[in-house]
Amino acid sequence: MAPPPPPAPDATLSDVGEFGLISELVALFPQGEHVLVGPGDDAAVLRVRAGHVVVSTDLMVEGRHFRRDWATAEDVGHRAAAQNLSDLNAMGGRAHSLTVGLAAPADLPAAWAIDFARGFAAECALVGASVVGGDLTRASEVVIAVTVIGACTQAPVLRSGAVPGQLLALCGRQGWAAGGLAVLGRGFRSPRALVDAYRRPAPLYDAGRAAAEAGATAMIDISDGLLAEAGHLAADSGVAIDVRSAAFELPEPLQAVGAALGVDPLSLVLGGGDDHALLATFDPGSPPEGWVVVGEVLAPGDGGPGAVTVDGAAYEGATGWTHF
Amino acid sequence: MAPPPPPAPDATLSDVGEFGLISELVALFPQGEHVLVGPGDDAAVLRVRAGHVVVSTDLMVEGRHFRRDWATAEDVGHRAAAQNLSDLNAMGGRAHSLTVGLAAPADLPAAWAIDFARGFAAECALVGASVVGGDLTRASEVVIAVTVIGACTQAPVLRSGAVPGQLLALCGRQGWAAGGLAVLGRGFRSPRALVDAYRRPAPLYDAGRAAAEAGATAMIDISDGLLAEAGHLAADSGVAIDVRSAAFELPEPLQAVGAALGVDPLSLVLGGGDDHALLATFDPGSPPEGWVVVGEVLAPGDGGPGAVTVDGAAYEGATGWTHF
Repeated sequence: MAPPPPPAPDATLSDVGEFGLISELVALFPQGEHVLVGPGDDAAVLRVRAGHVVVSTDLMVEGRHFRRDWATAEDVGHRAAAQNLSDLNAMGGRAHSLTVGLAAPADLPAAWAIDFARGFAAECALVGASVVGGDLTRASEVVIAVTVIGACTQAPVLRSGAVPGQLLALCGRQGWAAGGLAVLGRGFRSPRALVDAYRRPAPLYDAGRAAAEAGATAMIDISDGLLAEAGHLAADSGVAIDVRSAAFELPEPLQAVGAALGVDPLSLVLGGGDDHALLATFDPGSPPEGWVVVGEVLAPGDGGPGAVTVDGAAYEGATGWTHF
Repeated sequence: MAPPPPPAPDATLSDVGEFGLISELVALFPQGEHVLVGPGDDAAVLRVRAGHVVVSTDLMVEGRHFRRDWATAEDVGHRAAAQNLSDLNAMGGRAHSLTVGLAAPADLPAAWAIDFARGFAAECALVGASVVGGDLTRASEVVIAVTVIGACTQAPVLRSGAVPGQLLALCGRQGWAAGGLAVLGRGFRSPRALVDAYRRPAPLYDAGRAAAEAGATAMIDISDGLLAEAGHLAADSGVAIDVRSAAFELPEPLQAVGAALGVDPLSLVLGGGDDHALLATFDPGSPPEGWVVVGEVLAPGDGGPGAVTVDGAAYEGATGWTHF
């Protein structure tokens, strides 16, 4: 049988139909050698080695986590994969398989779904992971559900291992995506470097495992805001954390946005998420290459376990965002 | 620290907040021995044996896959878990771990989410599987995203192994959930047995592995309609299938609904899904206990591979449903 012709450029999901679109999407997902059965059966079948399997799942909702007028479908695909791949990175693990569910209105352009899948597949390819299954259904808004499965070759690094006296260190650029989101929110499209950072984050997928091997005692992915994530790490470890504001580089684009929007660029760094930088704790001394010391781990003080201070004092700005 | 007080009976997700609700939900999910790290870190950590890992994912959207006025939250939790557990059953596998994402309006009662989780956990307990992770976010309607991970102790049974001359057999009640959905759709609440079958399906979780061990050559879970699923099996196997209508039991409640609604009860059996019965093919002879022969596998004829006939002729009724 000849393959079906590609959908017309203006075709909607409703025009193309569930099964037509699924076959278009599946063709975009190459399967790794560990995938014995990919998409299309009741379940995918993977061959895995014995050991630690790491699993994480995330939802993205249109209008809340992304806007179709602020990013291309391909960008959204990259971001959806990146935020899940980054969760495994923060355990010191590496993804090998993902599933993706797409709930969407019937009038969503089929091309959007295809471009989304193309971006998703491209991001997964950066770590050699395969999209092994999915689901497609109708809803009144676009909801993307991703689950990522991977392996740890060493003991996973949890949020709960920080000990007073250790260093808090950051790996990866931080605040750039928040800056991009801030300018998009005001109707601007520049500085381009920040807008691009928001649209398509670039997590350092080798950094998590390297940190684990270098002795990271606790690690977390910054998706909801640096201080908020530091708070999760401190709470789970039963410690307090003090962040040193002078430790953060404030590169030119962040300063430009701060000046243009009248916000302190440091607030983008401390409260912003979406760059998927990593925050980890290490024994005193030099952190691994690529990591910058940004604070220290303290015994719980008056604020109790989980308290996070900036330069020794409570922080007045936003520390992250909540979902309700 | 004392645990937080339970939310007030009329509290919404917005009142309780993301983190408050997550801690309520996580407390409902006991963790199996294979779970080294459960919900709450960047990823769950599982200890698995080397071998075949089976993975499947499904979305359920309010108003499309369930209605909050037609089923309790606990029922919806049972169904959401059941339809995913059933996918692994249809591979001859068994689930050990699930993730669940819940996107919901801010005014959803927190009690709904808690009761949903209670039903979900109870269904997972039937096979000894653990809910190891999840996500909670805001959306304009309720969307539930489930991923299930499990193991096969023998070679997985795919959709593609049917060979002409083999038997098609059914395991589990079929048409009951469709009957329940039909009466709910007309505003009735009885026959109660059918409505209950729709609200809370009861897949036979031991049947898939038993069929695999008994030599099932192809297998599929009936979620979207018996004839539609037979068609997927036939298409993937490159065969045709003829279903014999006289093979189906038409129990009293199905006959009662047929008479009351003026529909052929056989149409509920052939076109209905949601019971999560299994359809499988076996070599000629007697199928395993609990299975009823309902048709046969044929070489592709005029209809080509994938064609499904009923008593040798094309079927005029609905064979299942599509999502767009």
